Amino acid sequence: MRKVAELGERKVIQVIINSLDKMPNMPVPFGDDVSAIKIGKTTLAVVKMDMLVGKTDVPPDMSLRQAARKAIVMNVSDFAAKGVKPIAALVSLGLPKTFNEENLKQISLGLNEGTREYGAYIIGGDTGEASDLVISCSLIGVCENQILVRRSTAQPGDIVAVTGEFGKTAAGLKVLLEKLKVPKEIQKPLTEAVFWPKARLKEGITLAQAGFLSSSIDSSDGLAWSLHELSVASDIGFTIDFVPLASEAIEFAKLFNLNPLNLGLYGGEEYELVVTVKREFWDKAKKAIENLGGKLIKIGEVTEEKRLIAKIGGETLPIEPKGWEHFKN
Amino acid sequence: MRKVAELGERKVIQVIINSLDKMPNMPVPFGDDVSAIKIGKTTLAVVKMDMLVGKTDVPPDMSLRQAARKAIVMNVSDFAAKGVKPIAALVSLGLPKTFNEENLKQISLGLNEGTREYGAYIIGGDTGEASDLVISCSLIGVCENQILVRRSTAQPGDIVAVTGEFGKTAAGLKVLLEKLKVPKEIQKPLTEAVFWPKARLKEGITLAQAGFLSSSIDSSDGLAWSLHELSVASDIGFTIDFVPLASEAIEFAKLFNLNPLNLGLYGGEEYELVVTVKREFWDKAKKAIENLGGKLIKIGEVTEEKRLIAKIGGETLPIEPKGWEHFKN
Repeated sequence: MRKVAELGERKVIQVIINSLDKMPNMPVPFGDDVSAIKIGKTTLAVVKMDMLVGKTDVPPDMSLRQAARKAIVMNVSDFAAKGVKPIAALVSLGLPKTFNEENLKQISLGLNEGTREYGAYIIGGDTGEASDLVISCSLIGVCENQILVRRSTAQPGDIVAVTGEFGKTAAGLKVLLEKLKVPKEIQKPLTEAVFWPKARLKEGITLAQAGFLSSSIDSSDGLAWSLHELSVASDIGFTIDFVPLASEAIEFAKLFNLNPLNLGLYGGEEYELVVTVKREFWDKAKKAIENLGGKLIKIGEVTEEKRLIAKIGGETLPIEPKGWEHFKN
Repeated sequence: MRKVAELGERKVIQVIINSLDKMPNMPVPFGDDVSAIKIGKTTLAVVKMDMLVGKTDVPPDMSLRQAARKAIVMNVSDFAAKGVKPIAALVSLGLPKTFNEENLKQISLGLNEGTREYGAYIIGGDTGEASDLVISCSLIGVCENQILVRRSTAQPGDIVAVTGEFGKTAAGLKVLLEKLKVPKEIQKPLTEAVFWPKARLKEGITLAQAGFLSSSIDSSDGLAWSLHELSVASDIGFTIDFVPLASEAIEFAKLFNLNPLNLGLYGGEEYELVVTVKREFWDKAKKAIENLGGKLIKIGEVTEEKRLIAKIGGETLPIEPKGWEHFKN
């Protein structure tokens, strides 16, 4: 009998889903970034639940305040991908018995920061004893059914774009986990990317409200994995001709003789949005995000052929469907 | 600096709440059985999140299937107390690496049973590695604002009632935790009460929809603690003249020379409803629950004087504000 460590997170989820009765007419299918129930003729209540466990999700040197804030931000990022504003959060806290009042205050501070940064509030939850620090968050919001951008509706010819550069958190995690010595100028931006992740909520809401997107996902399991997920859900492929990399990630790759493209593609824990934009709206979409002070960077296009390839620097390479995975990593 | 083990669950929650910005005009205050957001002029989305941790919430001999089902039922019980039907659930699972596929299936089966028994479905969640088994559930439902029965609205003169007898789970937990030998006739009903808890959802919805209740809570932290919570929230007191005890709990108390009243009052993990009924509706309320095949048992009345007393068998005793508490128990 296989252990969960052999199955990996994605098969674990499949085993669970296979045992469940399915809600008839689910407005958002299992496996999308959020879940939803119908609450009116055209209205959805949107919910999301994601858990942070100290042992696996909190790298060395990350403070409790940062970890708690991250537990919220990683949920907000999924709302961002769907274009939905979170209204409120609930939090279940599992606390080791040795935690003290100051630890608790730091966690609360981080939870509050994470929600308030994105306009939401914590309205409830519970707490109990656990061996690890466990921060399980759920978010709730409300939206019109046609606003919510699914994973499954990308069309061949659409432009695929991202909201920022990649590679910093992958490099930052390496610095922290492997205790690497790197020059100060890049050490700070790389580790800050890990400690203070940002969700692209404004960007996601703006693009979804305007109807510019045909599909969307966040890049929390890595850019390559996100593209893979979109391709499976929408039954399409991607040709990627540009992977925007942060200059600090390129610098880091040089220092340690790594392929910077791998940092950008297979990193994970990066909370950019990966969206497909209907071609006729591309200019408007790019402008709208720039008006917010953000970026919308074209990285390629949707193809009918269901394969993921990168055509970069005259070379054509397959993009492998791999990324961050619990139990396995 | 005090550790969480010294603070106890209730002070831990207070420390957290003190650090949070409060949502303006929260339709249900912090500390009630559920949380809610306004989604229409008179409509609420109701949410609840409660976490089960293997180490502290799963007694010996309870199966994974039973534990998973319980993780849902304990959340449903809070919805029951408010008179709200749960529509869907999300589940975050923390799994030890050693768990295998069969363990997973048993957990999924229990989660599915727990939701389907009460008409809800699991629509999402996530999973990750943890040292303990962690099952964090959140429920969502929708209701009219005036249907949701708060804790804070009991009035002097109201009748206080419960939906069943007490003492079985307290006795059952003792049997399991202390490995006590008891006669077969009572061993089964006592331990089954622990393994297969039931939420009084039909009862709660029926009473709330009809407008019979002035306040309500579930008894998951014990009858005495529930009365204490209602008394604080509503700024009233209770005179209790009857504590309905299960015959098996009385038998158990006799065998081990315990006061059966203590089993009934201070037990916890019992999912009955503790409600205050507007006096003019008492007969109708009792009838309505009997028509469902349930029980509504008068145990006393609400007093203006803010104290909890039991007047039983000619004696007057204080009911102490104590019950199950994480970190401390």
